[in-house]
Amino acid sequence: MSGTDRQDKGEAGGGTGADWIAADWGTTNLRLWAMRGGGVVARRASGRGMSGLAADEFATVLAEATQGWGDLPVVACGMVGARQGWIDAPYAAVPVRGQPRMIRVPGQRVWIACGLSQASPPDVMRGEETQLAGLLAARPDFDGCACLPGTHSKWARLSAGEICSFQSFMTGEIYALLARQSVLRHGIGEARDDAAFDEAVADALSQPHRAYARLFQLRAASLIADLAPDSAASRLSGMLIGWELAGAKPYWLGHEVVIIGAPALSGLYARALRQQGVTCLLADAEATTLAGLHLARLQIGETA
Amino acid sequence: MSGTDRQDKGEAGGGTGADWIAADWGTTNLRLWAMRGGGVVARRASGRGMSGLAADEFATVLAEATQGWGDLPVVACGMVGARQGWIDAPYAAVPVRGQPRMIRVPGQRVWIACGLSQASPPDVMRGEETQLAGLLAARPDFDGCACLPGTHSKWARLSAGEICSFQSFMTGEIYALLARQSVLRHGIGEARDDAAFDEAVADALSQPHRAYARLFQLRAASLIADLAPDSAASRLSGMLIGWELAGAKPYWLGHEVVIIGAPALSGLYARALRQQGVTCLLADAEATTLAGLHLARLQIGETA
Repeated sequence: MSGTDRQDKGEAGGGTGADWIAADWGTTNLRLWAMRGGGVVARRASGRGMSGLAADEFATVLAEATQGWGDLPVVACGMVGARQGWIDAPYAAVPVRGQPRMIRVPGQRVWIACGLSQASPPDVMRGEETQLAGLLAARPDFDGCACLPGTHSKWARLSAGEICSFQSFMTGEIYALLARQSVLRHGIGEARDDAAFDEAVADALSQPHRAYARLFQLRAASLIADLAPDSAASRLSGMLIGWELAGAKPYWLGHEVVIIGAPALSGLYARALRQQGVTCLLADAEATTLAGLHLARLQIGETA
Repeated sequence: MSGTDRQDKGEAGGGTGADWIAADWGTTNLRLWAMRGGGVVARRASGRGMSGLAADEFATVLAEATQGWGDLPVVACGMVGARQGWIDAPYAAVPVRGQPRMIRVPGQRVWIACGLSQASPPDVMRGEETQLAGLLAARPDFDGCACLPGTHSKWARLSAGEICSFQSFMTGEIYALLARQSVLRHGIGEARDDAAFDEAVADALSQPHRAYARLFQLRAASLIADLAPDSAASRLSGMLIGWELAGAKPYWLGHEVVIIGAPALSGLYARALRQQGVTCLLADAEATTLAGLHLARLQIGETA
């Protein structure tokens, strides 16, 4: 992928040879790629996520953000398709084929990927379905589990070209709330104590209820036992990831796991899973998203 | 207690017959009682908690807040004795006698209760030690467990007039963060669905790792299964309290439990514990605090 990448220096546009635009339009960010087939011609990013936009602002924001790239079809995924987004792209219920279901914005050359839902246990995703499609495009015979760590981590079971089931965890959001807004914030630094992380993962996995009891101990140990802020951060991170692994065990136990996410966070999940003897592969999140959007682009085909 | 209570209507003061002042000076609130022996003559409250005050402001705030009550000794508990408070009242390590350890503010007729610490597992409390003292003053032979639900719930093992061990849980703070600041906030109402609460407690107690996995399901179920906001709130509350009970099991299993806290919250803990066949008593939080401060006042005695 990186061989075909280059930054947009203003001269990009229809003249660059791009023939479509890929968009990952999330809650807080908008990321755009001018694409030629499966290759990136230029990229842009802004903070104009869906949460700050009214339904009638999306078209203008998109036009401004893609200025100079020519009048090209746009294929998007993410919260732009939520009820509070541009249009409500209804959920497709699992099990589904990996290929994303797309819905066209009326009057626009814009297509948005539908999210996925699961009736029992109740769950939803928006955006990650496109990454799962990208993974299955690259590995159609993949039989295993995908882990997408983030604000709301997702675990998905993939088999025979289908997304069979999935489960979400609030780990990223809970970490941020505890580390920055709770009483723990006074003693939380950067998470870079591997031994503390490993120990907390193992504890939380083997005794989940004790991990809950141990949250306040991070505060107490920083007050009376000089627990270092970096160790406290690693313990908190390990505790929450260990908890998540305990809950997600039916997904990873006995399966190959592909982790799709930001490199540092993916590395922590891989470290925790490898402790449990699980075989993990790390996939590049951007490349996987673009592979999924490219698949959708091919599916839309001539209608665009 | 309530028989001797009356609101301060401005005429209270040395002339009311008060002979000391009780203070519960926490992080966000200051509560004051003009006392005659063990009885309340007048009460006041303000939002001038320790977190908004510099060390040199406490004396002025106290003088203003007790104006008209005469020049009386003040016996205080709570975060006023923290490192960031008026003076650092050092922790006393458990096991300790129930009687609170008091430290005098230099140059003032003010005494502050020392908090408690525990080396292993590391834990601290400030303020609750005074309530435990109050409980032991009323029931010197109590052999069981005290549960003090709140922002940071405390469980303490009491026996032979001593506080033997204790453990803290962040349940109240985590509930507030999840219900008001996380993605769950969109679907959380008032917790008043008893059946949903009971079910969530039982689930979390029997399968603590599943409770973590079920947090995001509250969001998903409100999106795709019309989960009512009041039921979602009760489920979240039950999930967290059930988790806490799972971690605190060595405290309550086979013991009598006295719950000291705000009535509504204490009622939820009692409901959850009684599901498990535990005998619970509810104690009035204010009365228990004042009993502990009165015990401290008697101990200080003539030096005041």
